[in-house]
Amino acid sequence: MRERWLKIAEASKPQLYRRVTLPLRAVEGASRPDPRQNWEMLDKGPARTVCDRTWRGGESFILDFGVHTVGYIEFDLLSEGIADAPVRLHLVFGEIAAEVCEAFDPYSGQMSRAWLQDEIVTVDVLPHRVALPRRYAFRYLKITVASDSAAFSVRFGDFLCHSVSSANPASVEPLPAGVPEDLRAMDEVSLRTLANCMHTVFEDGPKRDRRLWIDLAICAPVNHTTFRQFDLTKRCLYLFAATSSQEGIVPACVFEVPQPHAGNDFILDYTAHFAVTLLEYAETSGDWQTANDLWPLAWRQLEMLQSHLDERGLFADPGNWWIFVDWEPRLHKETAMQGVILRGLQAAVTLAEKLHDPDRAASLKPIIETMKKAAREFLFCREKQVFVSGPDRQISWASEVWMVLGRVVEGKQAAQLLRTVMAMPDAIKPVNPGLYHLTLEALWMCGLEKEGIELLRSYWGGMIARGATTFWEIHDPERPLLSPYGNHLVNSYCHTWGCSPAWFIRDLVRRDYWKGKSPHKLEGSFEGSHEINTRKSS
Amino acid sequence: MRERWLKIAEASKPQLYRRVTLPLRAVEGASRPDPRQNWEMLDKGPARTVCDRTWRGGESFILDFGVHTVGYIEFDLLSEGIADAPVRLHLVFGEIAAEVCEAFDPYSGQMSRAWLQDEIVTVDVLPHRVALPRRYAFRYLKITVASDSAAFSVRFGDFLCHSVSSANPASVEPLPAGVPEDLRAMDEVSLRTLANCMHTVFEDGPKRDRRLWIDLAICAPVNHTTFRQFDLTKRCLYLFAATSSQEGIVPACVFEVPQPHAGNDFILDYTAHFAVTLLEYAETSGDWQTANDLWPLAWRQLEMLQSHLDERGLFADPGNWWIFVDWEPRLHKETAMQGVILRGLQAAVTLAEKLHDPDRAASLKPIIETMKKAAREFLFCREKQVFVSGPDRQISWASEVWMVLGRVVEGKQAAQLLRTVMAMPDAIKPVNPGLYHLTLEALWMCGLEKEGIELLRSYWGGMIARGATTFWEIHDPERPLLSPYGNHLVNSYCHTWGCSPAWFIRDLVRRDYWKGKSPHKLEGSFEGSHEINTRKSS
Repeated sequence: MRERWLKIAEASKPQLYRRVTLPLRAVEGASRPDPRQNWEMLDKGPARTVCDRTWRGGESFILDFGVHTVGYIEFDLLSEGIADAPVRLHLVFGEIAAEVCEAFDPYSGQMSRAWLQDEIVTVDVLPHRVALPRRYAFRYLKITVASDSAAFSVRFGDFLCHSVSSANPASVEPLPAGVPEDLRAMDEVSLRTLANCMHTVFEDGPKRDRRLWIDLAICAPVNHTTFRQFDLTKRCLYLFAATSSQEGIVPACVFEVPQPHAGNDFILDYTAHFAVTLLEYAETSGDWQTANDLWPLAWRQLEMLQSHLDERGLFADPGNWWIFVDWEPRLHKETAMQGVILRGLQAAVTLAEKLHDPDRAASLKPIIETMKKAAREFLFCREKQVFVSGPDRQISWASEVWMVLGRVVEGKQAAQLLRTVMAMPDAIKPVNPGLYHLTLEALWMCGLEKEGIELLRSYWGGMIARGATTFWEIHDPERPLLSPYGNHLVNSYCHTWGCSPAWFIRDLVRRDYWKGKSPHKLEGSFEGSHEINTRKSS
Repeated sequence: MRERWLKIAEASKPQLYRRVTLPLRAVEGASRPDPRQNWEMLDKGPARTVCDRTWRGGESFILDFGVHTVGYIEFDLLSEGIADAPVRLHLVFGEIAAEVCEAFDPYSGQMSRAWLQDEIVTVDVLPHRVALPRRYAFRYLKITVASDSAAFSVRFGDFLCHSVSSANPASVEPLPAGVPEDLRAMDEVSLRTLANCMHTVFEDGPKRDRRLWIDLAICAPVNHTTFRQFDLTKRCLYLFAATSSQEGIVPACVFEVPQPHAGNDFILDYTAHFAVTLLEYAETSGDWQTANDLWPLAWRQLEMLQSHLDERGLFADPGNWWIFVDWEPRLHKETAMQGVILRGLQAAVTLAEKLHDPDRAASLKPIIETMKKAAREFLFCREKQVFVSGPDRQISWASEVWMVLGRVVEGKQAAQLLRTVMAMPDAIKPVNPGLYHLTLEALWMCGLEKEGIELLRSYWGGMIARGATTFWEIHDPERPLLSPYGNHLVNSYCHTWGCSPAWFIRDLVRRDYWKGKSPHKLEGSFEGSHEINTRKSS
């Protein structure tokens, strides 16, 4: 079975599109108190100015490729004077300015130092076309000449990046007139984020965690309404299936090489997402054959999840699983998990019905009802009019969002719930775009598109205002240097789960949301722009 | 003309022999006051012990390949546990222990930092066969694991080096019985030094100054009596010819790639060596066609040199040339230069006679006589019974050696001169093996083989006693960390001009020097041995 799944995964591997990306500007970092991780990039002229002069040991420059890209870099290294020694270069690639403006070492992050993208390159003979074999995710490239000889200086030329992605931009339907400019720009950043994560799997981030994670649930629908690269999603679903454990549980992440294999991590909430993703894939692609093939596996996840319900029908943390939900360390997750399982079970009911498995569909319905009832009875705080989690009755966006996504409450009641928690200053807010995405989904479900657009503008727009040209793994507007790994430089600044806005914007287009509205009357806006925000240095 | 010469040079390019070299031991550096540049290598067991265990971030090991080698390194990098991140390695290659035991940075040498052999290698996916594209000259390889992940440790396997040289060891006649053991060992180190410098040119050093220098005059004769790779010498002679200046002067060094071109340096004494090398090559190879072809060029060098003689026939420093002779900064070089030119002119006379150019031969003879007479009249100090140089009447080995090589004095008189200067504690001694080689040549010329053997044992044997498995660019027994470049780590520890002993030892064999002498009765010995001098660490 696993071997057959693996073959299907291999057969569905998409081709990579290559295009050449050129550096646009030479820039220089200037230290600033936030808003951009403490650095502003001052414009030093067109990128070619770097090639118009010679460089000596100890000197350095930074090239700005304008926007985030993923690919393979090449450049000429020449000598002025007779090159009588090799040349040693230090290259640093940065998704954001801080990575090329701050020293990587000494490094104290908990993630491997090897994720930070820098190289020492020694070139024995000049002139030479330097073509680095590794792939980098970056907007900025800093080069320091790390050796010197009295006999010559070096000259650089013809920088280019062979950018790669399995996303074909030609497949994307352009946004129609009427979509506000700021959301248009946000759509572009969303698409870039997704494309830069799309390779032979959805890589969680092309810089860090260059592998498939089951956040697939977030990015696959965006793909399906934009690049429509269905083979990639199919491949990913089959990779999870082929690497599932002996007990039939899908891993949280999958490595592709040397041969596909599961990572160490199994994450409880992620197992519930498998059915949701499978259903969404089948509905948008029409490929019900894959849904049928993987349905027993989706079922197996939910069987396992049900074993963690207590006699009342409430999720009880078994204590031996990683439950993710969000990176926020204070978050209590049991109420959210109730919603996570409910959403998975309800997707399973739809799958069962579509796949003509009425017995399984019927068997789930009473469990779903019990779980919803238990949630309303035991998790709702009448006094505060919100769902709470844990013995401290913690209030968080995560709990309310998952109660809505799990359809414990619906319609006006759900809308009221979300309005209430979002107005509570002490409610624990999300820190990662993944949970913000789910918040948007919940707002959408109860007709709060206006609030959703505000959230797009404040949260994703906030990243753009801070210089993002792709959306980040982590963004907490109040803690700009926040990292779950003890070092903001090792955060990923192009992360699949950040790509959501394109889906919501396009859903509004589909529903003619802007028809009749003046395109110039924005319902709010965000500071800054997605354009390279640089100014001439004095 | 130059194009034709270039074609001949290309046609004479020798093939490179490849062989696999394996690491022998794992070692660890222990700080010691000299005699080995302050480091002793403690034995930590067979090299495979490094592969028998796993390694974490921050840990390091040193492999000892037993002897100096030049080539391309390969090894396996594996993971124990699931490799969830790239692995960053820091590799340092050392010709001597100090290079892997001392930090390269901060670097303060005058030569380019890029000559020091270290690399940062990041491996994205494990397992991986790491095969570094650059060539290294080394005995020791230190690897530090420079990144860490909680999920896995790394394992190394199957280290090997593809060693390369254009010297074919099978061409070397083995030394007969009767040659003392220590000189046999010294011969082996000589041959290794030469072979490790022999590639598609005689590289000055395979680590630093990886290019042809006109020290060719020293290493070519050793090649001709051992590996007999005549094509290589021919190629080098033609490369000098093809890259000579518009004025017809041969450069001091030649770069092979991207196309052969001269270095910046022209060294006055080196121009005189061209005729000497050409003659020696023709005599040993029998290739008088090449001699005939390049004779006008050799002649041009000597014409130019004669223009620097004053009316008395004495060399006068024109001030605008680099005159090398030795790295010793205190050395006054005019007297030595008198001998340098005389040797060149006398080689030219022989060349002219062999090549049937009697007019030129005849024209040189009176000049040679004048120069010799002037030397005896103006450069000899009757009181001290030695030649002196400069207004301070400096006494040096260099001056006396060159007076002998230039045949200003001969026979017993010459022997007396050399004995006298070598017994003078204040006479300026050589610091580089090149000048020691010339000293040996001078001793040989006046029958002082016994003193020559003593010098072999004290000077070249002194390097072996300090751990050398190839002979060094610089060796001053009294100043073990001496460097002309401000940093002993950037010195070359395998340098063509160090390879002389093999020639002298084989010349003694040819002359039956050891016939009848007991092989066990050494005429002196040197401390230590060429074997890996390690001991078990406590």
